[in-house]
Amino acid sequence: MVFRARMKVCFGDIDYAGIVYYPRFLHYFHVTLEEFFEKEIGINYPTILEKHRLGFPTVHLKTDFRQPLRYGDIIEIEIKVVHVGKTSIRWAYRARRTSDEKVVVEGENVTVSLHMDTFEKMETPEWLKQKLLKYQQRCRES
Amino acid sequence: MVFRARMKVCFGDIDYAGIVYYPRFLHYFHVTLEEFFEKEIGINYPTILEKHRLGFPTVHLKTDFRQPLRYGDIIEIEIKVVHVGKTSIRWAYRARRTSDEKVVVEGENVTVSLHMDTFEKMETPEWLKQKLLKYQQRCRES
Amino acid sequence: MVFRARMKVCFGDIDYAGIVYYPRFLHYFHVTLEEFFEKEIGINYPTILEKHRLGFPTVHLKTDFRQPLRYGDIIEIEIKVVHVGKTSIRWAYRARRTSDEKVVVEGENVTVSLHMDTFEKMETPEWLKQKLLKYQQRCRES
Amino acid sequence: MVFRARMKVCFGDIDYAGIVYYPRFLHYFHVTLEEFFEKEIGINYPTILEKHRLGFPTVHLKTDFRQPLRYGDIIEIEIKVVHVGKTSIRWAYRARRTSDEKVVVEGENVTVSLHMDTFEKMETPEWLKQKLLKYQQRCRES
Repeated sequence: MVFRARMKVCFGDIDYAGIVYYPRFLHYFHVTLEEFFEKEIGINYPTILEKHRLGFPTVHLKTDFRQPLRYGDIIEIEIKVVHVGKTSIRWAYRARRTSDEKVVVEGENVTVSLHMDTFEKMETPEWLKQKLLKYQQRCRES
Repeated sequence: MVFRARMKVCFGDIDYAGIVYYPRFLHYFHVTLEEFFEKEIGINYPTILEKHRLGFPTVHLKTDFRQPLRYGDIIEIEIKVVHVGKTSIRWAYRARRTSDEKVVVEGENVTVSLHMDTFEKMETPEWLKQKLLKYQQRCRES
Repeated sequence: MVFRARMKVCFGDIDYAGIVYYPRFLHYFHVTLEEFFEKEIGINYPTILEKHRLGFPTVHLKTDFRQPLRYGDIIEIEIKVVHVGKTSIRWAYRARRTSDEKVVVEGENVTVSLHMDTFEKMETPEWLKQKLLKYQQRCRES
Repeated sequence: MVFRARMKVCFGDIDYAGIVYYPRFLHYFHVTLEEFFEKEIGINYPTILEKHRLGFPTVHLKTDFRQPLRYGDIIEIEIKVVHVGKTSIRWAYRARRTSDEKVVVEGENVTVSLHMDTFEKMETPEWLKQKLLKYQQRCRES
């Protein structure tokens, strides 16, 4: 099964137009990634950063906003591994509103594996690659 | 000349990795758009929303993050009109760090013109189209 | 029992100093209030605002920050009703880190009941007062 | 003269109720402090943190919200030094809307001087104390 994070639009996420301020969606994506690491990969994202000295800054991002999202709406965001490169990972996200199952937003980003002390690109560690590839396989099957 | 908004990375923009949290860049883009309306088009963005009942939600977004941005960095974000459609506008942004003139982030988004009462798509008003096309012409020449 | 909302410090909540950016705590308080309305009072906060046209802006706030909070920390925030006035409500919050049960932050705020159409103060509706007073009683007993 | 930072309420600062989300005011206060350090004390806030390894987390906060603030409003926030202790500093803030000179929000916070490597309290460096006391004197005279 594909990993999903559940989120609820809160009061402070809303902008002047009465809908979710669009940068917040990218925050939702990031929280999804954090939860994915903890619950699916089995390692806390803080641990990766602090112990493994490994970070995953986004270098590329593409997003389609399909539906306005409103205060109180609940969404489930699925995250998929699209491609595991040597030093980069491509992820895909798709958020559905639980009330009507409509896709609200979907997107992709590419992260690079960075050493947190030098801020230099590094190869994604083998143990992580293996877990991500295994998850990618499961995404394809689902 | 192309319109530019100047911004400074503040304490709260920084994330756990010590660089600007990437959703903040999209906030920077939005602030640039707001300033563009006020200073270049000559109409307050709040006025457009309140009086003209017109909103410009983003439906598509594409961004490349080229350099990590740090606390205290100053950037100048230029905004260009790429295309003025019937009900949509395509914008381009490019942010340079003032200290070394490096491009830090660049991106494009597509907004649709929405009636704020009905949340239905509407044609971009003619007066605004004319101003945007004129600005687009100037972007090309610069 | 006193109502508690559980929250986890996420990547984007951290500031340049490596701890939770202090305005985020006030956001945590607000989310706690939203959850309190939904789960304890039995009415969605969006519903109160949209259907009842009732808002609760904060007019006074007092907070003590006792411990720095870090990325990945989990907190439980309890919320108590301290006083129910004619047009105002006084709330108290106390957040404990689940790992060591230490109080991380505690505070109080006073909200006024406002009619969302006129932005004029109004008496807190009787049905809500009754629920809040009942909850206040339970807070005292716990 | 008392130092003032000028700010404009942007689209993303607005909450579901159509006014500035109250945690944003505390962000405004922090930005004011950052600008105060740079322009009044003559040292970049990032420099203090990075070179001097000195941080000023807030331990106590008190705020009164007097007027709702709306999209497009411009405020000027003055900052005063109320008390310079051995390891703590008490600051006061008052924000006025430029359109009607009304006080929108005012507050105080106490920061402690912390060594950024150990997160232990430390004495505020003498050079900084002297500058703050001199500024405090000027606040009293104005």
